[in-house]
Amino acid sequence: MSGALPRAAVVLSGNELLDGRTRDTNGAFLSADLSARGVNVTSILTVADDEERLTAALEYSLAAEPDLLVIGGGLGTTHDDLTAACLARALGVSLAEDPTALGLVEERVRWVAERRHLDFEGLFPLARRQALLPASSTPVPPVGVAPGIAARSGPTRIYAYPGVPYEFEAMWRATAERLQAEEFFPDVAVRIVRMFGIGELQAAPLLEAAPHDLLETGINVGRGEVTVRLRYRRGAPADAQASAVVAALEAGAPVFSSDGRTVDDIVADGLRESGLTLTVAESCTGGLLGARLTERQGSSDYFVGGVISYANEVKMGLLGVPAGMLAQYGAVSEEVAGAMAEGVRAATGSGYALAVSGVAGPDGGTPDKPVGLVFVACGGPRRTKVVRGLYPGDRASVRDYSVSAALHLLRRELAG
Amino acid sequence: MSGALPRAAVVLSGNELLDGRTRDTNGAFLSADLSARGVNVTSILTVADDEERLTAALEYSLAAEPDLLVIGGGLGTTHDDLTAACLARALGVSLAEDPTALGLVEERVRWVAERRHLDFEGLFPLARRQALLPASSTPVPPVGVAPGIAARSGPTRIYAYPGVPYEFEAMWRATAERLQAEEFFPDVAVRIVRMFGIGELQAAPLLEAAPHDLLETGINVGRGEVTVRLRYRRGAPADAQASAVVAALEAGAPVFSSDGRTVDDIVADGLRESGLTLTVAESCTGGLLGARLTERQGSSDYFVGGVISYANEVKMGLLGVPAGMLAQYGAVSEEVAGAMAEGVRAATGSGYALAVSGVAGPDGGTPDKPVGLVFVACGGPRRTKVVRGLYPGDRASVRDYSVSAALHLLRRELAG
Repeated sequence: MSGALPRAAVVLSGNELLDGRTRDTNGAFLSADLSARGVNVTSILTVADDEERLTAALEYSLAAEPDLLVIGGGLGTTHDDLTAACLARALGVSLAEDPTALGLVEERVRWVAERRHLDFEGLFPLARRQALLPASSTPVPPVGVAPGIAARSGPTRIYAYPGVPYEFEAMWRATAERLQAEEFFPDVAVRIVRMFGIGELQAAPLLEAAPHDLLETGINVGRGEVTVRLRYRRGAPADAQASAVVAALEAGAPVFSSDGRTVDDIVADGLRESGLTLTVAESCTGGLLGARLTERQGSSDYFVGGVISYANEVKMGLLGVPAGMLAQYGAVSEEVAGAMAEGVRAATGSGYALAVSGVAGPDGGTPDKPVGLVFVACGGPRRTKVVRGLYPGDRASVRDYSVSAALHLLRRELAG
Repeated sequence: MSGALPRAAVVLSGNELLDGRTRDTNGAFLSADLSARGVNVTSILTVADDEERLTAALEYSLAAEPDLLVIGGGLGTTHDDLTAACLARALGVSLAEDPTALGLVEERVRWVAERRHLDFEGLFPLARRQALLPASSTPVPPVGVAPGIAARSGPTRIYAYPGVPYEFEAMWRATAERLQAEEFFPDVAVRIVRMFGIGELQAAPLLEAAPHDLLETGINVGRGEVTVRLRYRRGAPADAQASAVVAALEAGAPVFSSDGRTVDDIVADGLRESGLTLTVAESCTGGLLGARLTERQGSSDYFVGGVISYANEVKMGLLGVPAGMLAQYGAVSEEVAGAMAEGVRAATGSGYALAVSGVAGPDGGTPDKPVGLVFVACGGPRRTKVVRGLYPGDRASVRDYSVSAALHLLRRELAG
């Protein structure tokens, strides 16, 4: 990609991130957001709540002279909230109470005290600590109680936020809006091309064969999908090159999305357009497909429910799968998956129905029907279509692939 | 805790971890595992696949003289697999082909070539690169194709593994077994006390009031549970202190587990002991409760299935909830949740049934029935019990809390 992009370093402070108690979400959120805004995250350093270590981590991150340093965690009222003090040390300045920060803290503590019927005078002395900032830095208005910190060091803009994810995310978004207004972010475009039913080894040569010297490219695989991501500075030659790469992928691979939409988005849009409802009949996924469909707000516009037919008795009793069919073909079969889809459609009167039956493992596999064998069926107004898959990985992986396969089958059936 | 514990640093290499494509799992897995083995992880540093940055990251991590440095990623056949070269630079040694490593690579490439019907001679020249190790280091036998690296630097034992999670995890486990045999890990005990129906603000004072100077303590909250974790060097005074803390928590708080079992474990064990089956009837959770129950291998011993009754038509049609009850009380009500549990129990003949009906949001809330209001019901051989909850956070959080509340209700009903 022509012209260096801004660089960012991230420091996360918190013992709970280092002893298995909590999985980081702030670093993952921020690096995805910065990448889409055209900033390259060059390091994420997670350290314990310890004055020496946190100071050393800040010094290490500043030494690379990034354009941006974002710090998560260590802002609060307890003795292990050390970010302000360590940042002051790393910047070689003193720590002092900031009147603006003090006002923000007071306002937030009054609000908390009123809401929880607590005594303001009891809370404020401890909370006041959060108004201590490194000299010449400024507070970032809080979303919770603790203000953030904005500072500069040479070429580096520094922002620190509390580690609570919703505070961190909301405060970063507010900062990003200001940075956007200051034209800090380069004018980059991100295009995402999604394929299903192809491997990375088949997709990569298509990308390599198309000129892409003006583009930053990345390939990712997961849940049976291959995703190619293009990032580039907007402008005449790069825009055209990106469009040519997208066209080459569309010509040579089963591309299902080049406008950013996920399979979940496409299925939701397609169902809304069709005006028809959807139900599910789940065996090995045990409810995971319904859970994924109802992750979306507004899914009740088209999703009405279904049956979790984990045991054969439920397949027979609630879905009307014939006992003879189960005996002849087994629960994991093209016939039973199709009958499950038709059964739930008949029981509920839905327009479409998805069914999943497979061997999720780790037990239950046979030479004929190994772990990972899954049949996915889609019943609809025109026909019932069943596809067979053999998915890799452990129980969670097989279930995840199965859900993805079901969504892709519905996507294709909706497309006609 | 008396006596310093061994310290570990972690370095993860991979552009995909820094641009939002992939969320780290290796660092999270390793820090949890090391913590339980009595090792304190002091930093996790994630860097791009770049020779300067990765070398600097290794130097930074080694400078703290940890007892252990674990490196994930950057071992493979492509030009951005730089771990061996960067580690050699950081250690100030040369890179040379290791005969043992070469043998391991050759063996694995033959296996891959045979399995995928590829030409060994075509694959081997590129794969051979993986036998280049820093001088005086030794290979760690591969789980995939790439061997790992074992090295020493002063007091620090260094291990590098490929970033593919199943390879990283399996290779670390093999290393940990050897370290265990060498008595590298201190003799620590971890005790976990789990509570439900109490907040951190109520649990923390109970912990503070009990002597715990020989213990390292941590409190964590999530899904309505408060978890207290005690870690200590085994031995007479610390063992007794830990037992006294556990007893104090059990006396003062609604502790449901102090033997390490989760609510999922307890429910699974309880259902097996009862000899009765379980079904679900899910509205706002849309299948998430069934999905969680069937995450466990062997759940088919007691879980038979259920109904996702997202729309009222399904509540009436498949669960027999009376239309008049829905009209009078609304779908999100004590009455309807109870009728859903009884309906799915009657439709399937299961011993127990869990039902969930609530307002997951972000839309659909009213002053009477706000977002987060959830009724959870458990039908069983003795009675049908319904509990009301008001859960915080976004749609995903409300659904997650609801599933947890359902499991806890069943846990209590199973306990009699």
